[in-house]
Amino acid sequence: MASPSEKRSEIFRQPIKVINIGLTGFAESLRQQGVPVISVDWRPPPEGVPRVTHTQSGVSIDKANAEAVSRIMSGRPVIVGLDLAKHVIPGMTERTILHAGPPINWERMCGPTRGAVMGALVYEGLAPSPDEAALLAASGEIVFDPCHHHHAVGPMAGVISPSMPVWIIENTEFNNHAYCTLNEGLGKVLRYGAFGEDVYKRLHWMADVLYPTLASAIERSDPIDLRAVIAQALHMGDECHNRNRAGTSLFLRTITPWLARTCEDGDRIAQVIEFINDNDHFFLNLSMPAAKAMLEPAEGIEGSTVLTVMARNGTDFGIKLAGDPDRWFTAPAGIVEGLFLPGFSDEDANPDIGDSTITETAGFGGFAMAAAPAIASFVGGTAQDAISSTHEMYEICFTEHEHFTIPALDFRGTPLGIDIRLIIETGILPKLNTGIAHKDPGIGMVGAGILRAPRECFTEAFEVIRNW
Amino acid sequence: MASPSEKRSEIFRQPIKVINIGLTGFAESLRQQGVPVISVDWRPPPEGVPRVTHTQSGVSIDKANAEAVSRIMSGRPVIVGLDLAKHVIPGMTERTILHAGPPINWERMCGPTRGAVMGALVYEGLAPSPDEAALLAASGEIVFDPCHHHHAVGPMAGVISPSMPVWIIENTEFNNHAYCTLNEGLGKVLRYGAFGEDVYKRLHWMADVLYPTLASAIERSDPIDLRAVIAQALHMGDECHNRNRAGTSLFLRTITPWLARTCEDGDRIAQVIEFINDNDHFFLNLSMPAAKAMLEPAEGIEGSTVLTVMARNGTDFGIKLAGDPDRWFTAPAGIVEGLFLPGFSDEDANPDIGDSTITETAGFGGFAMAAAPAIASFVGGTAQDAISSTHEMYEICFTEHEHFTIPALDFRGTPLGIDIRLIIETGILPKLNTGIAHKDPGIGMVGAGILRAPRECFTEAFEVIRNW
Repeated sequence: MASPSEKRSEIFRQPIKVINIGLTGFAESLRQQGVPVISVDWRPPPEGVPRVTHTQSGVSIDKANAEAVSRIMSGRPVIVGLDLAKHVIPGMTERTILHAGPPINWERMCGPTRGAVMGALVYEGLAPSPDEAALLAASGEIVFDPCHHHHAVGPMAGVISPSMPVWIIENTEFNNHAYCTLNEGLGKVLRYGAFGEDVYKRLHWMADVLYPTLASAIERSDPIDLRAVIAQALHMGDECHNRNRAGTSLFLRTITPWLARTCEDGDRIAQVIEFINDNDHFFLNLSMPAAKAMLEPAEGIEGSTVLTVMARNGTDFGIKLAGDPDRWFTAPAGIVEGLFLPGFSDEDANPDIGDSTITETAGFGGFAMAAAPAIASFVGGTAQDAISSTHEMYEICFTEHEHFTIPALDFRGTPLGIDIRLIIETGILPKLNTGIAHKDPGIGMVGAGILRAPRECFTEAFEVIRNW
Repeated sequence: MASPSEKRSEIFRQPIKVINIGLTGFAESLRQQGVPVISVDWRPPPEGVPRVTHTQSGVSIDKANAEAVSRIMSGRPVIVGLDLAKHVIPGMTERTILHAGPPINWERMCGPTRGAVMGALVYEGLAPSPDEAALLAASGEIVFDPCHHHHAVGPMAGVISPSMPVWIIENTEFNNHAYCTLNEGLGKVLRYGAFGEDVYKRLHWMADVLYPTLASAIERSDPIDLRAVIAQALHMGDECHNRNRAGTSLFLRTITPWLARTCEDGDRIAQVIEFINDNDHFFLNLSMPAAKAMLEPAEGIEGSTVLTVMARNGTDFGIKLAGDPDRWFTAPAGIVEGLFLPGFSDEDANPDIGDSTITETAGFGGFAMAAAPAIASFVGGTAQDAISSTHEMYEICFTEHEHFTIPALDFRGTPLGIDIRLIIETGILPKLNTGIAHKDPGIGMVGAGILRAPRECFTEAFEVIRNW
C-alpha cells in the first residue's frame, strides 16, 4: 500500500477526472469548466414507485407528454387588444369576482384575497366601504370563481372584477385566448390585498387613461409576439416572473411609436409611458397570460402527466394535469423564504399566493433562474445557485424548451413540461419565485422570495395517474 | 508502489481537490462550482522585467494608479444636450474632419476611413462626388485630426464633420465634456466607410429630424445618468460595446416621455423611436463618450501607468498613458477573428478600426464579456469562454470597478485600469470586441469579431515608463 503522502502525490500526478452519480446538474457545471466528467444516470431506487408508462387502456404516457410539450412550445401568444373584463372574459357577470388559485369560498379566503375582493367591490361601486364590502362578500350575492376557470390568470390575489380592463392574448397557433389585468405597480396595490383611496384612484386612472390609450395603440400596432419578447428577455437577465425589467423595456420599445401615432395628447402619452417605466413588473401581466395561452392547448390530452396549471389562492396550492384538466389537486399553500421590506418580517407574511406560477408551468420563471442571477442574489444566493436551481428543475421536466434558452447554460432550452411522475420518482418539488403579501387585508406587499410547491398535491395526483 | 488500478481506486476514495497555479480564472470558476481549490499566486518569471514601483523622482506608481482609477470610477457622465459638431467641439473648423484612432494623414488612411471622409465631404457639400472628395482630401485643404484630440470619440472610421450633430456628455464630477455622433445603424453606413445616396439621405434625416427632436426632449428631461444606464445594461446581457440592446432599451424608456411632451407631431415622434428601436447599437454612441468623459480626468497624473486611451484608425493601433497624456504609442492595427456577413470573408476585412475600445479602457466592453455570453456565442465560444475572458483581463487591470458589476461573477466589479506594467509582466494583451469594415472605401460593414491589441505599442510604452 502507498503511504498517505504517496497517495496524495499520485493524485496530483494524474489529470483530475470526476465521476458524477445521479443529478446531472453538478456534472454539467463541471463540464462547462472544462473538467472531464463521466456522468452516471442514477436515481435513488423508486422504492415502490414503478415507472408508470401506459394507461390501462394502453395509451403511452411518454407519447401523450410529447404531444403536450409540443403544443406548448408551438404556441404563439400575441397581444390582440384590451377590453373590460365583463365584455370579454367568458362567463363573467356584473357580480362575478375572479381570484387566483384553486376554488375557495369567502370563509376560507386568506387576508390578502379578502382585502383585494373588498377593494374591488368598492372600486366597482358595489359597496361604499371595505367593511360593507366584506358583508356583501359574505352574503352569498357575489360569485367567486378561479381566474383559471375563465382562461384568465392574476398575480398575487389575482382579483379581476367586471369593469377592470384586461389584456386579450391570442394563441394564434391554436386560436385560444387568455386574459389578465394590467399591472398596478408595487407596494400598496390591490393584488397584494391593499385597499383605500390611493388604490381606487390608481385603478380608475388605469381604466380611464392607461387602458384606452394602450388599446388604441395596440389596435394600430403590428401584433406583439409575446413568445419572442419572453425569449429575448431571458437573454437580458429576466426570468419573466420575479424579474421583468427587460420584458417591460422591450414592450415599451414596441408600443411607444404607436402611442405617438394614436394619441394626440403628448402629456397623456408621457404619463402612460412613465407609469410603465416606473414599474419593472409591468410585463408580468403579459408573461402570465402568454404562459396561460401557451399551456391551454395541452389540456385534455389523454394520458399526459404534464402539469398545465400550478396556482395558489393564499390558502391552498393547486395543480392540474394535462390528462385530467377539470380536476384540481390541492394542498395547503407553503411559507415563502424571502426578504422583507423595512418594517415587516416573516410574521406578517401570508402563505404563497397567486397564479404567477403559470410561468414556471410554462418553462420560465423560477425554472429559468439561471437566466436571472440577480434574483438569486436578492435572496442571498450566488450565480451558481441560480444555475443549480435550473439544473435541478431539468430533473422533473419532460423536455427542454425549443424557443426559451439560457445564455449562461450556452443557450440550452429551459426545463419544460413538469411531469408528475418525475416529481414522485426523484422527490424533487418545483421551485417557485414569488412576491409576499401581508396576511391581513388592506396592507399590501411586504417582501419577495422563493419556496417549493407542497408535496401532497403531487402525491395525490400521482395516485390518480396510477389508476388511469 | 500501488498498482495503477489501486491508484485509481485511491483517487476516488478521497474528496477531489484542485491546486490552481497562476491565472486565477480557472480557480474562480471551479470555486463557483463548489470544488475546493487552493490557488497559488504565480506568474511566469518576469525575465528581466523587474516591477517598476516608483518614478526616478520618487512618485509611487501604485499611488498614482490608485488616484487614476479613483477618478475614473467617481466620474458621472450625463447627457446634457446635442448640438452641431462645429458649434460645440473645441477646435473644430468648417474644414476639419475628425477620425478615430491615432493621428494619420490621407496617404496612410485605410479604405474605410477614406470612404467615410469622402462621404462626409459630399454630405457637407464640400465636394460633389466621392471621387472629387478624394481629390479635395488629398489636396491638403482639409485638416484631419483624431477625435481624441478634441474630447471626442467615434466608432469604426469615427468620422465627425462640422455639420454633424453630436451628443454632449458632461462628467458632472469633474466638469469635463465628451462628444460623439449619433449612431446610424448597421450595414451600409458612413462609419463603416460606406458612401452613396442612402448614406447621405440617412445622415440628412438624422440632422434634420432625429437631432432637433432628441435635442428638445433632452433639454426638458432630467439629466440621463449614463454610468447608471451602463451599470444596469451590464446586468441585462450587454457589455456596451458589441451588444447594446439593453442600453438602447433603457435609453428609450427614459427619453420617450419627453419626446411626447416636446414634439407635437406624433408621426415624427414615432419615426424617431422606430429609428432607435431598429438599431440595437444606438446606445454605443452614448456608452463611448461616457467612457471618454470618465477617463479624461485621469489624464496627467504623474507616474500613472494606467491607459486612458486605446484607439485604432484602421492602419495603426494607438494607446495613451494617464502619466503621459500627450504622447501616442502606436503599432500596426491587428486582424480581427470574426464572423462575416453573407458574401464576405476575411479577405474583405480591413484591420481593426475605431475609438470604441474606449469602452474596454473604461472597464467594460470586451473586459465585461462575462456579462454578455451572447457575444461569445456569436463567435463560436461558450458562456464559460466569456467568463474566462473577463477573468483573464483582471490579470492586467489595476482594480475592479465599484459601479460596473457582473451578475455571472456574483456581481464582482469589472476589470478596470489597464496597467501597462501588468501587460508586460504577464504577457497578456487586452482582448477587444469589434465590428469589421470592408477594406475598400464605399462598401461598409462585413462582420464582427474579437482580437487582441498589438504587443509592440505596450512594449514601447513600457520602455518609456522604466525611464520616468
